[in-house]
Order: sequence, then structure tokens, then C-alpha cells
Amino acid sequence: MTFLERLAARVEVVGTSLCLGVDPDPVALPAGFSQDIAGIERFAKLLIESAAPQAAAVKVNVAFFEAFGSGGIASLERVRAAVPSGVPFIADAKRGDIGSTAARQAVALFDALGADAMTASPYLGRDALEPFLALTDRLVYVLCRTSNAGASEIQDLMVAGEPLYLHVARRAAVWAEGQENVGLVVGATASAEMRAIRATAPDLPFLVPGVGAQGGDLEAATATGPATAGAAAAIRGGGLLVNVSRGIAAEARAADDPGAAVEAAARRWADTLRC
Amino acid sequence: MTFLERLAARVEVVGTSLCLGVDPDPVALPAGFSQDIAGIERFAKLLIESAAPQAAAVKVNVAFFEAFGSGGIASLERVRAAVPSGVPFIADAKRGDIGSTAARQAVALFDALGADAMTASPYLGRDALEPFLALTDRLVYVLCRTSNAGASEIQDLMVAGEPLYLHVARRAAVWAEGQENVGLVVGATASAEMRAIRATAPDLPFLVPGVGAQGGDLEAATATGPATAGAAAAIRGGGLLVNVSRGIAAEARAADDPGAAVEAAARRWADTLRC
Repeated sequence: MTFLERLAARVEVVGTSLCLGVDPDPVALPAGFSQDIAGIERFAKLLIESAAPQAAAVKVNVAFFEAFGSGGIASLERVRAAVPSGVPFIADAKRGDIGSTAARQAVALFDALGADAMTASPYLGRDALEPFLALTDRLVYVLCRTSNAGASEIQDLMVAGEPLYLHVARRAAVWAEGQENVGLVVGATASAEMRAIRATAPDLPFLVPGVGAQGGDLEAATATGPATAGAAAAIRGGGLLVNVSRGIAAEARAADDPGAAVEAAARRWADTLRC
Repeated sequence: MTFLERLAARVEVVGTSLCLGVDPDPVALPAGFSQDIAGIERFAKLLIESAAPQAAAVKVNVAFFEAFGSGGIASLERVRAAVPSGVPFIADAKRGDIGSTAARQAVALFDALGADAMTASPYLGRDALEPFLALTDRLVYVLCRTSNAGASEIQDLMVAGEPLYLHVARRAAVWAEGQENVGLVVGATASAEMRAIRATAPDLPFLVPGVGAQGGDLEAATATGPATAGAAAAIRGGGLLVNVSRGIAAEARAADDPGAAVEAAARRWADTLRC
């Protein structure tokens, strides 16, 4: 089964575009969770246990575990094992490198960690993504227009009359030809840009960060995020995944019962992102 | 001490621009080394023991350890501990992300792994590098013109009459203003591009991959690689580091004594890169 087929099956079950983001920052843990890798792991598992049942996918930002060295990665492996089967698992790692290195990155994320999809940078070009693209049962979300405040510094540079991010979208659409395993990362903080990217790449599935704590435009994301052509468009929700991390995790901070608070927040977000 | 000061001290000792690259691929290990993380670690330590005494710095590509999960990172931590003090240690990881994530990447590479410098992608813009740039005793090598065959696909796109990689060089020079902790990754496979980058960013130190197995132009690298202005230009060798990975490691494959073969190869490369 391709990633899109697995995502389609999951969205049929949950009926939402919600992607649960797991980015546990030690300084933002609820009271009662130790600010170390044990607390990080406990909170990540609580997020997955309480929110993943409502989500179409789970995205873990691996840096929050890498910060604790080998012990952090061991923890990440246990957290990944806690994701229910049937819920696509995305490793947000923003990789990409020359061929021999990218091949090992693919092993790290797809084999060792068991990710269904990953994020990657386009800066080195297609050949730096080749080992990921070769795995037609997985998917690569290519960074296109990111959600950070300074994204425009490089991504908005004009190339032959259009911004670089549109050129990247166009290249990614070429990389995806004949195989349905390329998507784009498009921040919800840039809704006009998202419309232009959707028009340029009608069939690429979007992974949309920046909703919630980053203040992205949720209505624009759900209106223009779904694919309008190809295999992704045929899926319920158009292959769109809207990531919510802090918007769910933060609900646990002031709660007497963090698990119940996370579950309620995930339910609200799943409803908001109903598809 | 800044990274450049530590590099300067090291280059005064060894008199070469050689950077030992440690990228141990399980399929390319010498006979007698198991094709697993134990063999990888043993070979990485042999490289460091036999070649680091001749080198100005050691660069490890973390993906070759990440491919083995938490056990691989534990191995990387032991390999890092085997690098002699006084030899700057570069984590080649090509990171960069939105602020809260980049902060954890900085902890992972600089604190948990103890790297003196790291590599990062420019695609997200300066704010995605801010947590690295804030550490003025470390250094960030920003990907500018990489050594892979497909580098031109994105990096050579024309922006306002100049290729994107020159624009990145120009931005990196701005990011470096008032602090000497930004360098550039410039592949030896693109010598004309390297000259243009050097003219655009005269004071940024270069980390140059692509020599040896990738067929880069060594003479061009040593001629145009050294900085021509600022603190890096004041260092012996102009802050240039030329990375050699497979060009040294491969010598061990057919040798009866892999350690002696690596030592001899490193000595030849150090002489070739004498400064």
C-alpha cells in the first residue's frame, strides 16, 4: 500500500484532516512531568494515547528527542511503537543530502524508526532525495513555503518572474510524476502563497504546519489545502494534513487531568478540521 | 574561544587544510569489520586514531550513525569522545527549522554531541538558524553550493541576475556581521562557482567537500578556498577546510593493516593540502 492509500483508509475512519504534532519541549511540559527525557517520553505517550485516536496522522519532530542524545532516540523509538497501527507516522526531520548520505537517512527514518513519511529540504535538488523517492510505499513532504516568520528571506526570492517556493512546487510536481509519493510542506501562516502553490501543484498532498500557536489561517488552509487533481484529490479531505502541536499540548498545562484535557482538545481540533 | 580561534590553533600544529571525513558506510568497510554498528564504530575509531593526528578537523556525517537508531547514536557519542581534544569536531547534519525546533537541534548537536561546528540549510532563512548563530563560540556552515551532481537544479536558479547560491552567500555574509561564526559549504566539484562565491563573501570560511571520490578540483579549492578578508583570512590556510572521506577510508579496504593504510593516506592528503 502507498502512503496515500494508508492515509485514505485512516481518514475514512476519523473523518478529519487533523495531524497530531508531537514536539515535546522540556520547558513546556505540564506540572508533574520532569523536564528530562523521562518527562518528555511520558508526555509524548500521553499525547499519542489521548489524541492519536482522533487524528488522521501523527507527526513527531525528531529534534525534540535528538536533544537528549542516544537516550532521546531510544525514547523516540518507544514513542513510535506507541502509535497505533493504522495511524500514519510522519518523521519531521527535514533531511536531504548527497546520495550516499541520503541513503543512510532513508534507512534511519524509514527502516530504523519505521516512519511512513518524512520531511525533506529541496535545496540540494532531486538527487539528494532520490533514496527517499525510490521507496514508493513511503512519502516525502518537500519543504515549499514554511511557517516561520523569516521564510520569505530565501523562499520568496523571485526566479524568472515567480517566487522560489513556486519553482520548488513545480519541481516537486515533476519529481512526483509517475509515483504518488511526494507532498509539500506549506505553512498556514501564508494563505496567499498556499493558493498559488495549490494552483501550481494541484495534485500534491499538503502537510500544513503553523495553525494554533503560530497563528496560521485555518479557514484558508482547509479551503485551499486539499488537492484538486490526481490520487490525493480522490481521497476524503484531498490528502490534506493540518498539523496541530502546541494547540493541543498546551491544553494539558493548566489541567488537573492532562490526558482528559488533551483528549478534549484533540476532539475540538478534529471537529474543526472535519472533512 | 571562538571556533575560528580553535581552528587557527589546530592548523598551526598540523599545517594543513585537511578535514577528516568520517562517513562509514556498512557496505564499504574493510574485510574483518562487521557490517553492523559494531563494525561502523570500530572503523570510525580506527579512522580517528590513524588519521585525526594529521588533520585540522574531523567531520562526521551523523546519518551514518542515525541509520542504526539509538544504538547508532550511542556509538556516535563514543566516536565523538575518541576525537582528540584540540581537534575541532564538525557535525554534518544539515539542520535548520522553525525557532523552537532549531533550539532543540542546537542542544542535540552542540550540547549532547559536543560539536564545535555544524552544517545547516539556508532554505528557511536566518531565523531558522538563530539558535545556532546565538552561540558565538560555535560555527554554522551554511549550505551554499553543494557537491552533488544535481546541485544546480535549485542552487543555480537565477535570482535578480545572479544564481541562488550567490544570493545565499550574500545573505550568510550579512548573518555573519559582527560575529565570526558563519561559514559556507562549497563543493570542490564546482570551481567556477567557488570563485564567484569567494568574491561575494571574502571573509567566510569554507568547508569544501567533493574532493577525492566525488572528483572535485583540488587545485581550484586550495587556490580560491581560503578567505581573503576578515578573521578567517588572518588564519594560516585562510580558514579553509577540505574534507576527505572516502579518499582516506577506501585505502583501508585492500590493506593488510587498515590502520597503517589510513595513516599513510591521511599523511598524503595532509601534504597535498599543506598550508
